[in-house]
Amino acid sequence: MNAEKIPDIIIGRMPVYLRALQRMAEKGMQTTSSQELGERVSISAAQIRKDISQFGEFGKQGMGYNIPFLLDKLRAILKVDRIWDVALVGAGDMGHALARYQGFSNRGFRIVMVFDNDAAKIGQKAGEFTVQDAADMAEKIRAAGVTVAMMTVPAAAAQEVADKLAQAGVKAILNYAPISINVPPDVKVQHIDPATHLQRMTYYL
Amino acid sequence: MNAEKIPDIIIGRMPVYLRALQRMAEKGMQTTSSQELGERVSISAAQIRKDISQFGEFGKQGMGYNIPFLLDKLRAILKVDRIWDVALVGAGDMGHALARYQGFSNRGFRIVMVFDNDAAKIGQKAGEFTVQDAADMAEKIRAAGVTVAMMTVPAAAAQEVADKLAQAGVKAILNYAPISINVPPDVKVQHIDPATHLQRMTYYL
Repeated sequence: MNAEKIPDIIIGRMPVYLRALQRMAEKGMQTTSSQELGERVSISAAQIRKDISQFGEFGKQGMGYNIPFLLDKLRAILKVDRIWDVALVGAGDMGHALARYQGFSNRGFRIVMVFDNDAAKIGQKAGEFTVQDAADMAEKIRAAGVTVAMMTVPAAAAQEVADKLAQAGVKAILNYAPISINVPPDVKVQHIDPATHLQRMTYYL
Repeated sequence: MNAEKIPDIIIGRMPVYLRALQRMAEKGMQTTSSQELGERVSISAAQIRKDISQFGEFGKQGMGYNIPFLLDKLRAILKVDRIWDVALVGAGDMGHALARYQGFSNRGFRIVMVFDNDAAKIGQKAGEFTVQDAADMAEKIRAAGVTVAMMTVPAAAAQEVADKLAQAGVKAILNYAPISINVPPDVKVQHIDPATHLQRMTYYL
């Protein structure tokens, strides 16, 4: 692996390549080219070659990429050659949808606990999980060694929840609340906010 | 407005600034600085000044930004000084969560129709909407002049649905299916895929 720090924008494209390669593998494909992969993900072949070469020599000139080999490499690079336990905070509509979502397990993640602070939700089911009291969240997350979390809480509660997650040892937070949250430097945050994504497109309309 | 094409990465930050400014306005704040805004969105003050200056002179040196004025400008730039009608395709768990989501209306969007191809879902409620047969999707979208859509369909169906949406005149697609979709050059796509976002963070853990 390159000793230089690899730009975050390149890191951000790696999961997209991994997803496309996984789908190719599921279809029984054994090899691909940067051209073919590029068409699937709408990224130029040159960009793909450049991005992947940051991590090593994973393809052969004129031979393309061996899909199972590249999958293994990308999974190791993104550290999803293992399964990460994930805590879900917020058992509203979006939390329920995520708790029931089947798309995590073959991509390196599994939800293991669901929290909410609403007495009407605590003890109820969210997918296969029983919603636990958010008051005990920090201890339970810390005891289980969970370092990845998703937050589907109202905007007004998001910063406080993020603070508690960081204190509990969480190092990666996927935030569905429509607000930016501040976290310590050693904690990563990604935001999912459909209105933000839509506004990014309406600019061009 | 700058005659040069403004980089997409800058466009992508504008909705984040808009969201933070909206929250400030809701709290009754009248002015802010690039420093203050930057702390809220975890982006440097210099970057914020540079980004916003791409679109015009909206702040005064040493005076900061007038929040209502900047809000108006950003809403106009992102074209959310109006309400966009949105078609939602896919009435599964995620579709239901989006159909019930309250966070669109004050940010420029409202869902107006929900489609699915599952006979068990057609005619049922998703939020306040009655799920319509996806077979009639193209005509209904075209007749209503809807140009923005969200897709919460299985990966295997995503490309076909995207093709139909593009043919129906949709110009902006927010895709929740965990697969890259290809669209004509005049159609914008954004992807929301929690596993992709999580993988982008586990790289750093």
